[in-house]
Amino acid sequence: MTRRSTLGARNRGIPEATVARLPVYLRALHTLAERDIVTVSSEELAAAAGVNSAKLRKDLSHLGSYGTRGVGYEVQYLVYQISRELGLTQDWSVAIVGLGNLGRALAGYGGFASRGFRMAALLDADPVIVGERINGLTVEHIDKLEQIIADCAISIAVLAVPASAAQPVCDRVVSSGVTSILNFAPVVLAVPEGVDVRKVDLSIELQILAFHEQRKAGGPAGVEQEYLEAVDGS
Amino acid sequence: MTRRSTLGARNRGIPEATVARLPVYLRALHTLAERDIVTVSSEELAAAAGVNSAKLRKDLSHLGSYGTRGVGYEVQYLVYQISRELGLTQDWSVAIVGLGNLGRALAGYGGFASRGFRMAALLDADPVIVGERINGLTVEHIDKLEQIIADCAISIAVLAVPASAAQPVCDRVVSSGVTSILNFAPVVLAVPEGVDVRKVDLSIELQILAFHEQRKAGGPAGVEQEYLEAVDGS
Repeated sequence: MTRRSTLGARNRGIPEATVARLPVYLRALHTLAERDIVTVSSEELAAAAGVNSAKLRKDLSHLGSYGTRGVGYEVQYLVYQISRELGLTQDWSVAIVGLGNLGRALAGYGGFASRGFRMAALLDADPVIVGERINGLTVEHIDKLEQIIADCAISIAVLAVPASAAQPVCDRVVSSGVTSILNFAPVVLAVPEGVDVRKVDLSIELQILAFHEQRKAGGPAGVEQEYLEAVDGS
Repeated sequence: MTRRSTLGARNRGIPEATVARLPVYLRALHTLAERDIVTVSSEELAAAAGVNSAKLRKDLSHLGSYGTRGVGYEVQYLVYQISRELGLTQDWSVAIVGLGNLGRALAGYGGFASRGFRMAALLDADPVIVGERINGLTVEHIDKLEQIIADCAISIAVLAVPASAAQPVCDRVVSSGVTSILNFAPVVLAVPEGVDVRKVDLSIELQILAFHEQRKAGGPAGVEQEYLEAVDGS
């Protein structure tokens, strides 16, 4: 009975918010590893990842990782644990659709291969781009999408197409059995149940910088004034 | 006395983890606004942003935003409140250094202008690229970096340069008085106290997709086996 209920807890899985933070921890850990740091306290790792340490410890406890009192976490082992949990210890075959500037940048992005993502296919609709060699791959025509997804066993499709093309391409990708889509096009994609879409907003980090710039300059305009009125009741 | 301590609380500011989630709420709210949705419950907004609703309510309470019982939050007003808090209701002048594929993609990225970021200058070291017109701006030579930062009142520098060039460019940007840097180069930048650097890892969203792909395929390899050994004590 105990065993069954514990297994049940396991099967309920990791909270989505924790999943979203695991790559952030992994990035911080890789940075520590690059500096040849062997162990890290939960406080240091939490600070590097921008969360509080209680949350970090709770997140990592979902992975069965509790660190050692007075020592902290072993950097390399925690990299392995998180990588395994995220599914990065196996290779995922990725297709990029749309080889404009962004698609080309993504095709050449070193950070993918080191995280378990293998660029397996590049596709575009533009006859000028089709046939071009980019990072060792030949750009194929979008007409061959279904065949290439099957032949290359594509797990994840990256859409770097114009907004107007995104939904039709998405529909074809989904029809071909792909259930994970990374969307850079500035549109909300409609997909059936069971298909995961992540939308990338490149401006998010800029927004966090803007917050700090504003703080350095003395806080949001008007807030102090509004606040004083509120506390004065005037 | 009460007033002073309350002001103190205000001045302690918003937790960093909340700041990091505000752009995510904003993205979700913009999506709702595009669908002409006028009000949203904390549960719906939390689900759209991938956090739990208690955390969302706590985060928004830092902005003095509590919603209305039984109605929720007004989408447009919450967009305004978060935008103001993040400093997006004013324009920030951004310079992009490095006009390779990624820099070009960023220069043409529609998501920046709509969030209060104005592309004010483009710089590159390559004489072939210098002088080129990209999205209405002429690419200037990196030699003019200091002058352009002053002339254009650049607040945020985006580094899309090769890894080897990132630290020297960063040093020059910082010397010119810029205190916010968005770094796409795959290196950790050393900066003095008071300078904020955000590093973009384009693979983070892919990692979240990989987690779900793996779950669809039955969970991390070996976890179940290891787990059963652990509960069996064998």
